[in-house]
Amino acid sequence: MYQIAFIGLGHMGLPMARNLLKAGFALKVFDLVQAAMDELAGEGALPTSSAAEAAAGAQVVVSMLPASRHVEGLYLGADGLLARLKPGTLVLECSTIAPESARKVHQAASARGIALLDAPVSGGTAGAAAGTLTFMIGGEAAALAKARPIFEAMGKNIFHAGPDGAGQVAKVCNNQVLAVQMIATAEAMAMGVANGLEPAVLAEIMRQSSGGNWTLEKYNPWPGVMENAPASKGYSGGFMAELMAKDLGLAQEAAQHSGSSTPMGALALQLYRLLLKQGKGKQDFSVVQQLFVE
Amino acid sequence: MYQIAFIGLGHMGLPMARNLLKAGFALKVFDLVQAAMDELAGEGALPTSSAAEAAAGAQVVVSMLPASRHVEGLYLGADGLLARLKPGTLVLECSTIAPESARKVHQAASARGIALLDAPVSGGTAGAAAGTLTFMIGGEAAALAKARPIFEAMGKNIFHAGPDGAGQVAKVCNNQVLAVQMIATAEAMAMGVANGLEPAVLAEIMRQSSGGNWTLEKYNPWPGVMENAPASKGYSGGFMAELMAKDLGLAQEAAQHSGSSTPMGALALQLYRLLLKQGKGKQDFSVVQQLFVE
Amino acid sequence: MYQIAFIGLGHMGLPMARNLLKAGFALKVFDLVQAAMDELAGEGALPTSSAAEAAAGAQVVVSMLPASRHVEGLYLGADGLLARLKPGTLVLECSTIAPESARKVHQAASARGIALLDAPVSGGTAGAAAGTLTFMIGGEAAALAKARPIFEAMGKNIFHAGPDGAGQVAKVCNNQVLAVQMIATAEAMAMGVANGLEPAVLAEIMRQSSGGNWTLEKYNPWPGVMENAPASKGYSGGFMAELMAKDLGLAQEAAQHSGSSTPMGALALQLYRLLLKQGKGKQDFSVVQQLFVE
Amino acid sequence: MYQIAFIGLGHMGLPMARNLLKAGFALKVFDLVQAAMDELAGEGALPTSSAAEAAAGAQVVVSMLPASRHVEGLYLGADGLLARLKPGTLVLECSTIAPESARKVHQAASARGIALLDAPVSGGTAGAAAGTLTFMIGGEAAALAKARPIFEAMGKNIFHAGPDGAGQVAKVCNNQVLAVQMIATAEAMAMGVANGLEPAVLAEIMRQSSGGNWTLEKYNPWPGVMENAPASKGYSGGFMAELMAKDLGLAQEAAQHSGSSTPMGALALQLYRLLLKQGKGKQDFSVVQQLFVE
Repeated sequence: MYQIAFIGLGHMGLPMARNLLKAGFALKVFDLVQAAMDELAGEGALPTSSAAEAAAGAQVVVSMLPASRHVEGLYLGADGLLARLKPGTLVLECSTIAPESARKVHQAASARGIALLDAPVSGGTAGAAAGTLTFMIGGEAAALAKARPIFEAMGKNIFHAGPDGAGQVAKVCNNQVLAVQMIATAEAMAMGVANGLEPAVLAEIMRQSSGGNWTLEKYNPWPGVMENAPASKGYSGGFMAELMAKDLGLAQEAAQHSGSSTPMGALALQLYRLLLKQGKGKQDFSVVQQLFVE
Repeated sequence: MYQIAFIGLGHMGLPMARNLLKAGFALKVFDLVQAAMDELAGEGALPTSSAAEAAAGAQVVVSMLPASRHVEGLYLGADGLLARLKPGTLVLECSTIAPESARKVHQAASARGIALLDAPVSGGTAGAAAGTLTFMIGGEAAALAKARPIFEAMGKNIFHAGPDGAGQVAKVCNNQVLAVQMIATAEAMAMGVANGLEPAVLAEIMRQSSGGNWTLEKYNPWPGVMENAPASKGYSGGFMAELMAKDLGLAQEAAQHSGSSTPMGALALQLYRLLLKQGKGKQDFSVVQQLFVE
Repeated sequence: MYQIAFIGLGHMGLPMARNLLKAGFALKVFDLVQAAMDELAGEGALPTSSAAEAAAGAQVVVSMLPASRHVEGLYLGADGLLARLKPGTLVLECSTIAPESARKVHQAASARGIALLDAPVSGGTAGAAAGTLTFMIGGEAAALAKARPIFEAMGKNIFHAGPDGAGQVAKVCNNQVLAVQMIATAEAMAMGVANGLEPAVLAEIMRQSSGGNWTLEKYNPWPGVMENAPASKGYSGGFMAELMAKDLGLAQEAAQHSGSSTPMGALALQLYRLLLKQGKGKQDFSVVQQLFVE
Repeated sequence: MYQIAFIGLGHMGLPMARNLLKAGFALKVFDLVQAAMDELAGEGALPTSSAAEAAAGAQVVVSMLPASRHVEGLYLGADGLLARLKPGTLVLECSTIAPESARKVHQAASARGIALLDAPVSGGTAGAAAGTLTFMIGGEAAALAKARPIFEAMGKNIFHAGPDGAGQVAKVCNNQVLAVQMIATAEAMAMGVANGLEPAVLAEIMRQSSGGNWTLEKYNPWPGVMENAPASKGYSGGFMAELMAKDLGLAQEAAQHSGSSTPMGALALQLYRLLLKQGKGKQDFSVVQQLFVE
């Protein structure tokens, strides 16, 4: 079993680290928030006072941070972690960041003989807690083979998306489609109801027909249609609208990089920003439904 | 077994009528195109020289026509079919038309004591041939109970969407979501590939993740990803882009009627019209992929 | 001087009729609201109890009604005004309605030997009061020549847009561009201010540069930039957002009729509908600015 | 008269430098393309073999480069120009780049006691040749006062947009509005013509009405409406569609930075990218008209 350093114990990182502990891995952890480390200490993790201390002697580093600048700050530069890790260390970078940023960290790792995988997740805090996350992974197949038991302790679907940065690209593509179909579902629900249909009936017809999609299957945005969906719990829980806006922004960065035209994805971003201006950024992203009803 | 009048033997109506014949129903048929009637005559149908002649003595009328104006022309007015049918006749109006147009025909039927169901289908010509169409039905439950064996001879999923016109509303809601997610999938495929991913890998990751939708499941727009999808056959077969534009136009009529805001659906319509301007209206609607590649 | 029947004394019709009185025309007027007729009676108009009574003996009929259905209701059918007017009567139909609806009324008028002009206006209630409206006119040049003195009593710019219905087409084209550039200006103002610019400075730079447009010239949506603009008066006065939504809906009907792709116009309509859902339909249409600020 | 170093002699820089020569300034110039320097040498400029050589001894540096990375490459870093210039030098950075990039260069200049102005232009190659450019300028008023004679030799409208970076913000706001109203005008022209209007008549009506904007005034996208517009010359000359796409991309970067929602601007970018995929990036940006006609 590997000695693992886990950096970043936020809403996602904490339950992911806990699942690694449950699977029997030895963990040194670091986060700026002491309470998060304390919580895991009670379950067997070893708190440290810096990322460097956590990583000292680790065979594997797992990081889960908010944005590109945190990841670049952690790994790059003369004081960065990559300058301290031994060649042969395996780095699993699970944050959702810009593909270009991921490629920059990959290059720096490669120059030091360190195998790095960009491995963003989907599945939200519920998936993190249940150990059912989806990992979309960019980097070399050999490194993924070595890392697989670690990923499997935290997730259910482990996809090899392609070379360096491919995990991030797959993630933004997926989340862009998700955002668009959430909005498309919400506006169709509102239009159907405004034209006299029962929400549950319309939802079921579309779910079983060619309009079927993941939001209709698992996550209907109309309150009351699905008992356990965030929409039926005041749009609490789930995946915050402001995080969806962040991912859609990363998608637009990728589109800018490749000159891709993504009219639906671009519009989704603008609509989520309208929602954020209404103060709904902390609610589940299905709250976009409220744009379309009075 | 009912005596059925079947009006409208186009790409959809012909195979639907054929399935009724196979199921043992007695059919009198009418279409302006003699060849279509001749084809069915060889399979047991009785050709007629007018809709009125086909409907004379029928217990059930099934119609499958191109647009609202044809349906209104067939049923309404002093010379219309509703003025000739006996009270108690059952009318299954399967065309895809504006919900308001459907409600107008419903009212006229109701005034004459005729039970009418608006019952648009999805599933395309392949579903019509295989008898696996989805019917979305508006009207009274009692009429639907009576009509069920007829629908089941032509389709697999028989949904009662709600009161008069509800079938049309459900259809336009469903097809609007379908169009949006087709475009969203196409633009994400193009962006992913432009950023270095293998199309089949990206398609599979999204299909199994929260970006999953019917187009990723059955109908991927990127050539070669799914062997049997229209995209892999030069965008032939399937459901023509110009018909999707028609349905999106009906959705906008419904949205206008209810004052609904549907930014995604409205944008989908405009993008399909751009495609039509490029002369691609007769190709399968997944040809929208070509907007996003050079 | 002609004997004129004026039908429809709403926010626009009342001041328009008043300007005709001031110019010396003899007016019989009709509106469902007695108070409106009373107001004009004090200025010399003759109130009547029906449109037919107002029109009896008139050489010219002017109508200013809310929507297509009112116009069709007034003129068409066995009881309609066209059936009662003498051949040779001149009809100036100033309502903003669907081009197709206008063409229908034109045809009926033509069949009766009545010269009709579709003549929608822009300029709002302020322009109606000041007699500075813009008229966009469809129909025959000879009829327009005859009607010109009447239009000039109510407006400043009298455009002959083309044949029957062309006035309505020009109007929806113009108002679609207006709505789009109002939104474009509002989102640019918000983005510029969020990035540190003074609103008045940004507004002036764009006004004098290639971003210049009518809204920057006369009607800036940012409060305080233009003292007399509705934005500086709590978005009161001016042209109501719900009327802009109506005009954008008419534009989409015209686009549907011709199969035109209008991505900007379609998006503008959806954004105005979002605004209406927020209860802002009665405010000036520049209130769209509030979508883009917190 | 100042000794000026002019860096970057492309389509815009060359005529701008020429106008400085005409106004009597002494110029040392540098560009990677020898021919551009040779051309100006005949008019009195002194070619050099590097930016550093051009800048040696100069009181003023003017730069006109393609993108953020060129500007950062020129000025920043241990080898960058800012490290070599004497405190008190005045730098006029006229490239169109990201506001954030401009601020970075401002900070580095400020740290060295160098006065820098971000001063992007609008007006295209025609305005550069005629000396009628518009400058939108960010930085300190004192520096602008000193630089004014230089700007006036190259342009007509000299706007002080605000503090460091404000010139770039004003530029992207303006060009975003410009792109949106160009597309809005193009789609309205196409819709109007498809509904029977004469293009020149429709253009004139909108120009004089509330739909009026700079494109209708100077730059109508419909061929033949304005004799001298690029649309009437095969969409040649003017401002290339790919440059508009670049500017719209910079606007989206600014919107991302401030979390601004710009649905119209975002859609304009996506439509220009569709146009680029059709191989029309080198044509004038009014070629967007062709998206909307068959």
